[in-house]
Amino acid sequence: MASGVIGRSIRRVDGEEKVTGRAKFADDLGVRGALYGRIVLSPYAHARIRRISKDAVRGVAGVVGVFVAGDLPSGGAAPSSRAGSLLARGEVRYAGEPVAVVVAETEAAAQDGLERLAASVEYEPLDALVDPEAAAAPGAPLVQPDLSGKSAEALLHAALRTEEEDAQGPSNVTSRVRFSRGDVGRGFAEAATVVSRRFRTSVVHQSYIEPHATVAEYDPYARRLTVWTATQGVFYARESIAATLGLPETSVRVVPMTVGGGFGAKIVLLEPLAGALAMALRRPVRLTLTRMDEFRTGTPAPQSILDVKLGARRDGTLTALQARLLFDAGAFPGAPVSIAALLLAGAYRLDHLDVRGQEVLTHKAPVGAYRAPGAPQATFAIESVVDELARALGHDPIEFRLRNVVQTGDPMPNGEPWPKIGLRDAVEALRKDPLVRPRRRAHGGEGVGVAIGGWLGGLEPASACIRMNTDGSVHVLVGSVDISGTSTALSQIASQALGIPVEQVRIVSADTDGAPAAGMAGGSKITYTVGAAVQAAGADARRQLIRLAASRLEAAEPDVEIVDGRAQVRGAPSRGVAIADLVKMTSGFGAAHPPVFGVASQAITHRAPAFGAHAARVRVDAESGRVRVTEYAVAQDVGRAINPAAVRAQIHGGVAQGIGWALLERMDYDDAGTLSTGSFADYALPRATDVPMMRDRLVEVAAEHGPYGAKGVGEPPVVPVAATIGNAIADATGARVDRLPMTPAAVVAALRGSTGT
Amino acid sequence: MASGVIGRSIRRVDGEEKVTGRAKFADDLGVRGALYGRIVLSPYAHARIRRISKDAVRGVAGVVGVFVAGDLPSGGAAPSSRAGSLLARGEVRYAGEPVAVVVAETEAAAQDGLERLAASVEYEPLDALVDPEAAAAPGAPLVQPDLSGKSAEALLHAALRTEEEDAQGPSNVTSRVRFSRGDVGRGFAEAATVVSRRFRTSVVHQSYIEPHATVAEYDPYARRLTVWTATQGVFYARESIAATLGLPETSVRVVPMTVGGGFGAKIVLLEPLAGALAMALRRPVRLTLTRMDEFRTGTPAPQSILDVKLGARRDGTLTALQARLLFDAGAFPGAPVSIAALLLAGAYRLDHLDVRGQEVLTHKAPVGAYRAPGAPQATFAIESVVDELARALGHDPIEFRLRNVVQTGDPMPNGEPWPKIGLRDAVEALRKDPLVRPRRRAHGGEGVGVAIGGWLGGLEPASACIRMNTDGSVHVLVGSVDISGTSTALSQIASQALGIPVEQVRIVSADTDGAPAAGMAGGSKITYTVGAAVQAAGADARRQLIRLAASRLEAAEPDVEIVDGRAQVRGAPSRGVAIADLVKMTSGFGAAHPPVFGVASQAITHRAPAFGAHAARVRVDAESGRVRVTEYAVAQDVGRAINPAAVRAQIHGGVAQGIGWALLERMDYDDAGTLSTGSFADYALPRATDVPMMRDRLVEVAAEHGPYGAKGVGEPPVVPVAATIGNAIADATGARVDRLPMTPAAVVAALRGSTGT
Repeated sequence: MASGVIGRSIRRVDGEEKVTGRAKFADDLGVRGALYGRIVLSPYAHARIRRISKDAVRGVAGVVGVFVAGDLPSGGAAPSSRAGSLLARGEVRYAGEPVAVVVAETEAAAQDGLERLAASVEYEPLDALVDPEAAAAPGAPLVQPDLSGKSAEALLHAALRTEEEDAQGPSNVTSRVRFSRGDVGRGFAEAATVVSRRFRTSVVHQSYIEPHATVAEYDPYARRLTVWTATQGVFYARESIAATLGLPETSVRVVPMTVGGGFGAKIVLLEPLAGALAMALRRPVRLTLTRMDEFRTGTPAPQSILDVKLGARRDGTLTALQARLLFDAGAFPGAPVSIAALLLAGAYRLDHLDVRGQEVLTHKAPVGAYRAPGAPQATFAIESVVDELARALGHDPIEFRLRNVVQTGDPMPNGEPWPKIGLRDAVEALRKDPLVRPRRRAHGGEGVGVAIGGWLGGLEPASACIRMNTDGSVHVLVGSVDISGTSTALSQIASQALGIPVEQVRIVSADTDGAPAAGMAGGSKITYTVGAAVQAAGADARRQLIRLAASRLEAAEPDVEIVDGRAQVRGAPSRGVAIADLVKMTSGFGAAHPPVFGVASQAITHRAPAFGAHAARVRVDAESGRVRVTEYAVAQDVGRAINPAAVRAQIHGGVAQGIGWALLERMDYDDAGTLSTGSFADYALPRATDVPMMRDRLVEVAAEHGPYGAKGVGEPPVVPVAATIGNAIADATGARVDRLPMTPAAVVAALRGSTGT
Repeated sequence: MASGVIGRSIRRVDGEEKVTGRAKFADDLGVRGALYGRIVLSPYAHARIRRISKDAVRGVAGVVGVFVAGDLPSGGAAPSSRAGSLLARGEVRYAGEPVAVVVAETEAAAQDGLERLAASVEYEPLDALVDPEAAAAPGAPLVQPDLSGKSAEALLHAALRTEEEDAQGPSNVTSRVRFSRGDVGRGFAEAATVVSRRFRTSVVHQSYIEPHATVAEYDPYARRLTVWTATQGVFYARESIAATLGLPETSVRVVPMTVGGGFGAKIVLLEPLAGALAMALRRPVRLTLTRMDEFRTGTPAPQSILDVKLGARRDGTLTALQARLLFDAGAFPGAPVSIAALLLAGAYRLDHLDVRGQEVLTHKAPVGAYRAPGAPQATFAIESVVDELARALGHDPIEFRLRNVVQTGDPMPNGEPWPKIGLRDAVEALRKDPLVRPRRRAHGGEGVGVAIGGWLGGLEPASACIRMNTDGSVHVLVGSVDISGTSTALSQIASQALGIPVEQVRIVSADTDGAPAAGMAGGSKITYTVGAAVQAAGADARRQLIRLAASRLEAAEPDVEIVDGRAQVRGAPSRGVAIADLVKMTSGFGAAHPPVFGVASQAITHRAPAFGAHAARVRVDAESGRVRVTEYAVAQDVGRAINPAAVRAQIHGGVAQGIGWALLERMDYDDAGTLSTGSFADYALPRATDVPMMRDRLVEVAAEHGPYGAKGVGEPPVVPVAATIGNAIADATGARVDRLPMTPAAVVAALRGSTGT
């Protein structure tokens, strides 16, 4: 047994190549003869395309192709997703929508062509629906009259049992969800205090360092499209490319490249377009977005409007919750309204609840996933109200939550029981943090806030293969990609399952030709689901090794153990054989034993939700409204920390991004739907000085089906940060800020308007 | 059931990309920043290297590195193989041995550097051992005094139980084999006629169209060497590279490229050297041989000297065989002497035999494998003698063979019983060919000859994986490469096993990171061994599909069948579901069924030898000695022809190469060991006009362990060709040519020296 590799903070397998700048990104690829594509993006949120003059580009040296919608395959039905809509047909529906493409021998030529082509487009501007409430109103003009089907992203995040309301007639509301229980009227009547508030959150960009980049090459003779791309999900990308371009899946190979930050936004975007261009030109084509393109045509997190009403008895017992969620999906469906509604209403025991959610289309960039999609917004709303209610009733915010939080077996808003969860354990762990115990009195604009939040954890079937090499080393083949350190965890799982030192294990995230099935790296599920397959494949390979060793050592199989890369007879370690020598028995001309090949396929159907409890200390400058987070503590249920350093890194990164949500980040649109924050000069990200030192407490409530008890840890830490900071601001100032980000201006406004609590 | 796909002549899956010139070869690879290497080859067969002046290359623009042996890793012990010996150390042992390498930014700069560097090397010529008999003599100076271990190639082809003689003291004889049975003295005494002859064969080059080419790239941060190469065996190449460079196997990735002809010679050659250069320079390096390099430093088939003595009773029953084989391995061991000895003595029932074989080192290029290594040489000798004996006794050559050929269960020369074989069936099938029935009398320099020969068939463990895609298509993942049409056969096997149309099946020959284990494409074993794994993996996947379908259709599993890509209830085909819909049940967020992933690992331990019987008509110009093959017929036991067109193509190609062996091909060395045939101007290959139309009869004696009864078909057809043509010449002229190739000069000499039979 490679004892103790589970729970050991080993170095990340991808660390060295990343810190030395050698990791290979899609844009680094040297594909011979590759052309450069640049995309003309609509400057209007809504307009008719009157004319595009390809002639405008004639004479630009190096340009080899100009494409508009009619030049490319339509993929059959009207597209239901951003990625499936290659170029706008006739009308643009958001500022930033791809309208045409110039492809050239060099980047400079493509840029020249782009400028001329963009200037040649004649638009007839039309009224733009920018405000989600106006768009949701009955009788509003339709953003997508021809929309067919549901977006895949909506389906992805809505693998939940929900109660859906039927729409009445055509509408921009493309998805409705409702969770209800009991009788909220009676519940509010039983309450001693009721708090009701409306919250607003902004469009937030995932702001990965690496912009979207993809290279596609088509071989017309082998009828084979190869796409190199920084995707979080190779099979999902392949399915989307094949469907959009009308190819069988065996004709599309998606090769995963290093992801330079994904956070949910690197699933599929430019890949079908790049593929279509490569097929049309029969030469490799590279598409890389500029940073401004990223802001204009990326898939940010949705803005939302959340109305929350919550009541409690004098003793602090919550009685009823009523909420309305409106998520603005932009021009294609895909907003995470179901999961947001479920999480908003899910963390507390409530006899009476009524939560309704809607997704609405507007003339804005279509939204995508961003780390725990929907959860930061929902949690900001509910945790602000819980905090306000606790204060109103004079309860300690920690004790108030401990009294009300759900436990294993309590019903979720959709009626299903909560699986095993460690929410209460996380709150109790946080209670031990110096930041909240003993609760120091705020002084001089300083305050402490707490909040809780979490994530259900994704599920998706996966297979894994383990192949032993003749030198005793191990290849583990998976179909998932590593965006957060999962390969390191998988190597630890394989090492432990096999009894072979972790240094001898290599994880391979294969392309779609070779990889076993796996879901995308999204939903905090790779370690949980693919890890389970790796653990089982490791056990399978270990059984095969023990069978070989037993025959070689002339021992009974139960008497053979594997210790540090050697098979030996229990109690007689000198009777042993190196793993390498066992593998050699299976290799070479005439070898008499089948290869050692461990394989497992799984479909875990039990979720492993993961919750955390956060506390922050802030200092608020009442005059400027500026907020500084000076101290931060997290207690998070991680199931089992396979690699504690990596888990901590996830927590720290999640909190840093949460600080962006809380205080800084917002994509601003004017009334015409035009983006006014198209660069990092206008869009503020947290800097190192905005992020305080953190304390983390890893709570280990083992997941029953996760490998060695592990559960997903990537998404939960971003969830409660904005609420935690909002609650700390309220503690410091008495004022409740009801919108994100809580910019100095918003804080000043809240201070002026507030009557205190 | 995709009925009838086994036995159907479908088009080769790699056909279109090859005939259109789009198949990607290693030299076509556009690896960004790749450097070009050129290798200085020794002009001397044996010499001391006095001095190499790197300064000679200083000043050549574009040269970035010059390397001699001391600059590169030694791989620990003294090398035991050609590939493991990167560059000569101190002494060269064959003309063509790599001495130094120049690496440059361009091919032209590398060539400039090469010329200057080559001119700068000072050699002290030493006596060269060129004649194998002189080298084998006791007391001969040693070619490789430091040789450690056996060559891997020798091991590969010698996975046979043999009786080995011990060497007495240091010698150039690096391998000895002996098969004996009964008492040959008694056997010859019982004979009415005894024929005894000495045969000589020449060094023959595999003459693939594509010269050796390999590109290597090293990432020092990820500690990862990637090698793109046209290898017949990715795992074998990886093991050799890793061992030579001292890397773990997880640090080496071998990516198989299209093989532009291999025939046994594309296993591993330049790969370790390319890897060493890429590691030293930290830039990608490409090594491609020129055609002249190929002749000088390739690994051709060995020359041999074979003494055969065979006796028979008047009734035609063979009584005894005595033979001596001497194979000249060149400067490293690796000649196929065991298999040659076994095949020489194996095809006939003999109570008395004594066969001894030796491999000897000389100062010539080290030999390698070439289609049925050792068999054309051995078969030329034995089948010539059998023919001569039949003539001497006045027997029909077909009947004579039918009386004596081995059948299933007869002992092989090593005492093991022959597994199920179809040798007799093949001879009987040939008997029906118009070429031999009725036997037309030769007239005017025309004659007909027959011969038999075959191949044992290789064995090596293999795994295979089958993954179902969400559109119902299928990926089959194997670790073998396709050098002869095997991917087409594997796609047919998978199609049949799954019940899914063959057009929806794609075979992936993965790189060593992702591939399941498999042996090299050598020994005619890919369809037999990997095909068996694919068939079993297909059955595994089919079971999983049926389980899903049974649950979906609410039927019992035994009632569900798969027909043309659809699962349906037997007898009620309208109750069915598309495979794609079953696969969708296993994919996506929250799917409740594990992925359909068929896997199998096998280690077949039963050989499936394959024999053929050939007949040729020739016309001999007695004056010039020129031989023309005018008609050719082959009957070959192929077990089961998965794809008859592909099997026929193997037969036709094998016969064409055999005509080269028989009449044209020879690498000539002078007494100093210098090659005088370094181009296709000097080395004659068969042209289209040298190859007659052929008739083939596929005999199907099903292999018990092969997929659908298939056995290896690639190597057997080259085996008896030279003997068949030699026997036809004897029939036409009465003269026996005892050496290969049977050039006009050799024929004229035989005619002059012959007394007839």
